[in-house]
Amino acid sequence: MQKDFITVKELYRDKEQYIGKDVTVAGWIRTSRGSKNFGFIELNDGSFFKNMQVVYDEKLENFKDISKLAISSAILVEGKLVSTEGAKQPVEIQAHKVVVEGESDSSYPLQKKKHSFEYLRSIAHLRPRSNTFSAVFRIRSMAAYAIHKFFQERNFVYAHSPIITGSDAEGAGEMFRVTTLDMDNVAKNDEGKVDYTEDFFGKEAHLTVSGQLNAEIMALAFRNVYTFGPTFRAENSYTGRHASEFWMIEPEIVFADLEDNMDLAEDMIKYIISYVLENAPEEMEFFNQFIDKGLLERLNNLVNSEFTRITYTKAVELLIKSGHKFEYPVEWGCDLQTEHERYITEQIYGAPVFVTDYPKDIKAFYMRMNDDGKTVRAMDLLVPGVGEIVGGSQREEREDVLLAKINEMGLNKEDYWWYLELRKFGTATHSGFGLGFERIIMYMTGMGNIRDVIPFPRTPKNAEF
Amino acid sequence: MQKDFITVKELYRDKEQYIGKDVTVAGWIRTSRGSKNFGFIELNDGSFFKNMQVVYDEKLENFKDISKLAISSAILVEGKLVSTEGAKQPVEIQAHKVVVEGESDSSYPLQKKKHSFEYLRSIAHLRPRSNTFSAVFRIRSMAAYAIHKFFQERNFVYAHSPIITGSDAEGAGEMFRVTTLDMDNVAKNDEGKVDYTEDFFGKEAHLTVSGQLNAEIMALAFRNVYTFGPTFRAENSYTGRHASEFWMIEPEIVFADLEDNMDLAEDMIKYIISYVLENAPEEMEFFNQFIDKGLLERLNNLVNSEFTRITYTKAVELLIKSGHKFEYPVEWGCDLQTEHERYITEQIYGAPVFVTDYPKDIKAFYMRMNDDGKTVRAMDLLVPGVGEIVGGSQREEREDVLLAKINEMGLNKEDYWWYLELRKFGTATHSGFGLGFERIIMYMTGMGNIRDVIPFPRTPKNAEF
Repeated sequence: MQKDFITVKELYRDKEQYIGKDVTVAGWIRTSRGSKNFGFIELNDGSFFKNMQVVYDEKLENFKDISKLAISSAILVEGKLVSTEGAKQPVEIQAHKVVVEGESDSSYPLQKKKHSFEYLRSIAHLRPRSNTFSAVFRIRSMAAYAIHKFFQERNFVYAHSPIITGSDAEGAGEMFRVTTLDMDNVAKNDEGKVDYTEDFFGKEAHLTVSGQLNAEIMALAFRNVYTFGPTFRAENSYTGRHASEFWMIEPEIVFADLEDNMDLAEDMIKYIISYVLENAPEEMEFFNQFIDKGLLERLNNLVNSEFTRITYTKAVELLIKSGHKFEYPVEWGCDLQTEHERYITEQIYGAPVFVTDYPKDIKAFYMRMNDDGKTVRAMDLLVPGVGEIVGGSQREEREDVLLAKINEMGLNKEDYWWYLELRKFGTATHSGFGLGFERIIMYMTGMGNIRDVIPFPRTPKNAEF
Repeated sequence: MQKDFITVKELYRDKEQYIGKDVTVAGWIRTSRGSKNFGFIELNDGSFFKNMQVVYDEKLENFKDISKLAISSAILVEGKLVSTEGAKQPVEIQAHKVVVEGESDSSYPLQKKKHSFEYLRSIAHLRPRSNTFSAVFRIRSMAAYAIHKFFQERNFVYAHSPIITGSDAEGAGEMFRVTTLDMDNVAKNDEGKVDYTEDFFGKEAHLTVSGQLNAEIMALAFRNVYTFGPTFRAENSYTGRHASEFWMIEPEIVFADLEDNMDLAEDMIKYIISYVLENAPEEMEFFNQFIDKGLLERLNNLVNSEFTRITYTKAVELLIKSGHKFEYPVEWGCDLQTEHERYITEQIYGAPVFVTDYPKDIKAFYMRMNDDGKTVRAMDLLVPGVGEIVGGSQREEREDVLLAKINEMGLNKEDYWWYLELRKFGTATHSGFGLGFERIIMYMTGMGNIRDVIPFPRTPKNAEF
């Protein structure tokens, strides 16, 4: 039956082809205004952000029933597509038959009045039918595709890193445990400790916080790879920027240094944004008008700007020299806070900025040590309006230096046996970064809360739907 | 630095452009044969399945060092690309400079001799460097992209269904628990039971076994959607077909019945296979030669065949009429076993077969009840060599029928409040199916064990790497 219907998207995009012809569409009523002899329906069929106006009159045999239909009723409409020059919409359908597929009723919660985003979260099964979330989730889908397209066109291999991890090499404090142990009666060993040998994987298992170490394995075989999958944080953060479950993109490239890494990040960000601007003009116009007035200007600026590259040391100097009073004072060695990051990218440069070569003590063990012995070959990309959007580094490829670092940081080298072996059998200069998928969706849509760019968000005390 | 290197893939695919010119490549030694005055290296740079032959001689200032390099050493090679007509490979590089990027040594486990797949699983950090796994994981990447491409070109919205689920609506027995409770001292309530209000999500949470119910939410807003993400089974199955973590594709389409659903599945399967055949001829040739002799013929047949459609009732009749002796006897009402499925698709039809309209008692509650009151509008796609590869159904869109079914099956209707509401506010005919991603990778590569098509497989007692 789907073949019998044309989509609203086709009717908008190829309207010349259909004007004057009979068409059949199927969709849901967004608004309905009836009078005694005729009525108007705004129909959305899910294929397109915009609605199709349907005009009907008393010649319909079920005219009365149709004029009483509640919002969100599903209908099939047969009629003629006509041009409506000068009207808000370029075309409309003059219906000669309307069939009710599934009625709605007056208890439907998404009536025309504006609802708060907070309320809409409580009806996550219906909010994709609202203008805002219809736009957000379509952008999300397009951006995901743009990411795959970008990497595949460049011959990167998409590598699935594991979701369940048996290594607690990445900071176990904030990880979710995965278990099949009986919680009412947890298996204990002779010493009275939990007996994880009885658990499903024969040892402790958690949800991954990053696929990077696995991505390095794949990169050292395939040269250029990327991951794109869910990652998890068991953090009790109730901010609008933190979710317990989110998606990450982690490219990893070999025979490639930090400059290559920054080139890649810059190209990727520009590609994703350009793709969305080009393929979702209606949605982006909506965001620019109703969610974030300066959005399109900011995005167009970013796509056309050259990203600046400065060292952390330089960034700290500039922040101090600015004389600006920050909540967290700046000095060499401190981690940059969002206020610092935004000041650099918004006030000092007015453009995206890569900050490189951070102090080793505030960065991860796997980042490549610089010759100064004090900094590592890390990079963060800061963008106006957000702050950090990408974080990455050149990886420590020297087995002896890596091992010394693991020991120095009190990590257990047995946990890293295979990671160390990668440095033993044909190690090579390599680099990579992580992009939080939701973060770039927020950036592109102007949506301020991460819960509003994930269809079914998971946060502390919330795993509904 | 990555810009300085040309990839082996480019040198093979656009060789005319480079023959006679100086090129620089970077990669790993797969094999090396040296004599007193000259030597040959098979270099793989990860960009391509095939190796580049590098010829060098004593004119290299580090000739001795190069000729002693162990397998998997990483090197940079500068030299002239020359045509080698009549030889096994179409081109080779005559090196005038070789720089060692990272040495390997004789303890490298992947020496030239053939290793068992079982052994290779124990070195999952190195096996992507072997021919077989290089091919498998590149096919995996391409197939994933083909799936996104297929759906996005058809205006489907990619919907991320949640990984952590708070509903145990899907069969809790086989689910992994996700928790942050202290296992040494599990929180208990006044009744002495586990106090899940103290757990991270304030209630029990598990890893998803299917994104379908969430996909239906999205479909009833966007018309056509698909999920593509990891799913989990806490089953103690040690077979070569079961993994605890695997990826699933679940499209869901609205204003679409079971016929549309079968059309979509058929188109999708053919698209994925055609894409891989076209884009990975070298890898597919390898599988056909070394893993599964009839592979290419089987895949080409499938792409060019019309899939048959029969009812379950007809299938049972045919199986009984065949007189074939099955391990599990066949009668109306039984679930079809792999032996039955394969007999239908291999012996009876010699082609892919959709079997539809299964007895309601062996299928899920959400499948649409037929007018006969005995069968539901389900479909399984059976393919030669495997059996079931896709399972789907038209969904029960009638609120009263769905509710009766939920009650009849002893399910708790409160758990399905939002799923039922989808049937209340503009319900519509809709359908969908699930495709196990690993299953189609096995089908396309001929690999017999699911552990060998997942980079880092998770199975009972195994979560290494």
